[in-house]
Amino acid sequence: MTLLLNCDLGESYGSWKMGLDEDVFPHIDQANIACGFHGGDPVLMMKTIALAKKYGVTIGAHPAYPDLVGFGRRSMNCSENEIIGFMLYQMSALDGMAHSQGLHMEYVKPHGALYNDMMAKNEVRQSIMKAVAQFHRPVKLMLQATPNVSEHETEAEQFGIELVFEAFADRCYDDDGKLLARSKAGAVHSKEKMLAQVKQLNEQGTITTVGGNTLRIKADSLCVHGDNLEGVQAIAEIKHIIQGD
Amino acid sequence: MTLLLNCDLGESYGSWKMGLDEDVFPHIDQANIACGFHGGDPVLMMKTIALAKKYGVTIGAHPAYPDLVGFGRRSMNCSENEIIGFMLYQMSALDGMAHSQGLHMEYVKPHGALYNDMMAKNEVRQSIMKAVAQFHRPVKLMLQATPNVSEHETEAEQFGIELVFEAFADRCYDDDGKLLARSKAGAVHSKEKMLAQVKQLNEQGTITTVGGNTLRIKADSLCVHGDNLEGVQAIAEIKHIIQGD
Amino acid sequence: MTLLLNCDLGESYGSWKMGLDEDVFPHIDQANIACGFHGGDPVLMMKTIALAKKYGVTIGAHPAYPDLVGFGRRSMNCSENEIIGFMLYQMSALDGMAHSQGLHMEYVKPHGALYNDMMAKNEVRQSIMKAVAQFHRPVKLMLQATPNVSEHETEAEQFGIELVFEAFADRCYDDDGKLLARSKAGAVHSKEKMLAQVKQLNEQGTITTVGGNTLRIKADSLCVHGDNLEGVQAIAEIKHIIQGD
Amino acid sequence: MTLLLNCDLGESYGSWKMGLDEDVFPHIDQANIACGFHGGDPVLMMKTIALAKKYGVTIGAHPAYPDLVGFGRRSMNCSENEIIGFMLYQMSALDGMAHSQGLHMEYVKPHGALYNDMMAKNEVRQSIMKAVAQFHRPVKLMLQATPNVSEHETEAEQFGIELVFEAFADRCYDDDGKLLARSKAGAVHSKEKMLAQVKQLNEQGTITTVGGNTLRIKADSLCVHGDNLEGVQAIAEIKHIIQGD
Repeated sequence: MTLLLNCDLGESYGSWKMGLDEDVFPHIDQANIACGFHGGDPVLMMKTIALAKKYGVTIGAHPAYPDLVGFGRRSMNCSENEIIGFMLYQMSALDGMAHSQGLHMEYVKPHGALYNDMMAKNEVRQSIMKAVAQFHRPVKLMLQATPNVSEHETEAEQFGIELVFEAFADRCYDDDGKLLARSKAGAVHSKEKMLAQVKQLNEQGTITTVGGNTLRIKADSLCVHGDNLEGVQAIAEIKHIIQGD
Repeated sequence: MTLLLNCDLGESYGSWKMGLDEDVFPHIDQANIACGFHGGDPVLMMKTIALAKKYGVTIGAHPAYPDLVGFGRRSMNCSENEIIGFMLYQMSALDGMAHSQGLHMEYVKPHGALYNDMMAKNEVRQSIMKAVAQFHRPVKLMLQATPNVSEHETEAEQFGIELVFEAFADRCYDDDGKLLARSKAGAVHSKEKMLAQVKQLNEQGTITTVGGNTLRIKADSLCVHGDNLEGVQAIAEIKHIIQGD
Repeated sequence: MTLLLNCDLGESYGSWKMGLDEDVFPHIDQANIACGFHGGDPVLMMKTIALAKKYGVTIGAHPAYPDLVGFGRRSMNCSENEIIGFMLYQMSALDGMAHSQGLHMEYVKPHGALYNDMMAKNEVRQSIMKAVAQFHRPVKLMLQATPNVSEHETEAEQFGIELVFEAFADRCYDDDGKLLARSKAGAVHSKEKMLAQVKQLNEQGTITTVGGNTLRIKADSLCVHGDNLEGVQAIAEIKHIIQGD
Repeated sequence: MTLLLNCDLGESYGSWKMGLDEDVFPHIDQANIACGFHGGDPVLMMKTIALAKKYGVTIGAHPAYPDLVGFGRRSMNCSENEIIGFMLYQMSALDGMAHSQGLHMEYVKPHGALYNDMMAKNEVRQSIMKAVAQFHRPVKLMLQATPNVSEHETEAEQFGIELVFEAFADRCYDDDGKLLARSKAGAVHSKEKMLAQVKQLNEQGTITTVGGNTLRIKADSLCVHGDNLEGVQAIAEIKHIIQGD
């Protein structure tokens, strides 16, 4: 099974532009589309769905805390009911708009602080799983591939939902299989190291940790970034590696 | 065919309450549910859908201009694309959340200034019809019953959508079948006149205009208001009249 | 020196009403006025300032996290710069609008989760103090009267700002001088106990803790609530006690 | 008296960037700073004020309709009270924040649709004048220099406020002294024509209309745009012309 590439897209808002979406779409497999709470207004969502259709890219919802000015990057202390509510609202909005173009939303990847809280706090993750379970069609939830993969899978089974896992191309992993904190030296790979990590993960299903150990990572997808021309270029090269070109 | 009763519901927002929703639901047939742009947050939308389920009330979307502080009552000069975008977004959000509870949205009634603009401006009404046509399932659009009913039906046919028409219980009609402007004397009926108008409309399909003429009104539904106890009481009495109790 | 009464006011928003402001104003000394981030739109702010003027009530800013749907009750993980920014923005907006009516804002009392975070987290409190210090005129910061009063005063001195302290009429204090958690039995006083606590605090500057101990509380002001008729009635009775009627 | 240069600045929002503010500031005299309703969050406002201070640029408020996703470009049907409210709120917020850095707001230039409505609708313009008059310090209102300058001045006198007028460097004027509609050929000048228009206006106080006539324009300031590198370069050249370099 080949690694897929996923990217956050549709994060412009009104008159403000963000990301080189049109350049990214040709290279990726899964589009995490902003749903209006941290970025992505309705008109842009229609355009982004149209791009996904044009390039045959799978659509995922990218729901966030309701924090436009903070771009969904600030943790908010929300109740289970609030998380379920804003998850279903955002997922439904995107899914319905995708249906208008003959597509549908296939998975959910929480954004920013909601993603971080999902990985760090059991109650947030379980609220998110509950929301995904309450959606009227089975859709998958995307989590970070960590050493807790099997725990998370057991948890997901209890909610009757299916998970997919993503790894990071440009981040160094520590010996426990977690991302090395950004404050640490070597946390973010150079382009060469990034491409090597992709190659190793794609061919052998492993990464080399900061301590030089080889670690198996269960990843279905690789998270890439299309904020600038350099990023888009890197995505193209990663795609070549994965396709074995 | 009996007149149905429709009411704007789910218009509270966060900590702010509006409307006596729980008292209204037992008496009505169609709930126009706010979708977050003029009122109605995601948690409240879930509650309002649950009430609709409990009382067997049909769910309609009540989309608005994006104007929370103005409660969607201020006309905004939006493009066709903007109207289609925010209509599909709000309709999809509500419909998906209804599906989570085994229901679905069956019709759309624009709110406030969007409703007024729909009735007054051809380009706004056509943008709204286009949006309804682009929704992935057939849903009906609710318009005011005016002398232009057949024109509007012809227009709707071109977009491939179906219309339903509503009349107003408490408003006096002028001799052209339009609502008498609120600034005019007698524009809003006393309770007695309101109940008489409901009775006549229900039994004979006509209303008596300000000038004393009898006018045929093609109405499928009657718009009622549940803002306060008096309103709720009036709804109950209107229901009795329609049911022939 | 007499205890003053402060109350959160101006927390309606657009078409949504909250609080019996007109009934509360005649009885209080200090109005904590919402500045638009958790409640309080510009038109309402003008009205609330006019009421303060009519009744000779001192104006305080009641700034909040930017979270309208959550009514500023959800903690948000904001940076120092973000806190300083939204504090100065809200304080300035209210102060300028007060000046238009010949008044000015004299103190700041953070709202909801921002208040709680101020009391619980040093870095939030210090960001708030920094913001108050950066305001172009000396204004006081209102904190909860706790056993840490002198620590907080030392801290405030470093920022060159002045503090005022508030106590709660209706809340039971534990033996450490903190509020008994709402989850505990007896956390919220009956009306009789509340009035007794006010009397004792006003006359002797002490409260009786949950354990029966007498504790000195350094309070300049008493926080009261005007959400409903009962609350307004209680405020009137508290005012009588303080005035020695 | 020399023509001043004014430019819309501080229109980024949260994570979204707009405009080359740092490159524009060295060349201009007056900064129209967004106040949060169409762009410009509190943190950015502090930064923009700091840039104005660094370059000795006069600060103006750039208030807008409350329409973030529409960037304040959509006309909204607001009441006088609503316009006064949101004008005073935005003016006060910016002015107070400027005071924190030892500066103050000296003039107001409405943004986008609010500016257009001000020029086109008497009641909007008068609401705006009323708001400026209610601000607690005299600040000037910036209007477009049109053939109605003296009418507008008479109107302003009634409100006790002072006006300043701006012309456009890059727009062709019709024979009545109005801007040629953008839909017409030649509505937007080439760079050469723009620089020639600036030169003529600066030296002779006139412009040449689309019909070849010479028209006197009473302009205190020239509106320039810093959205991209080309725009910034044009601003620098305009500045040279005005300074007689």
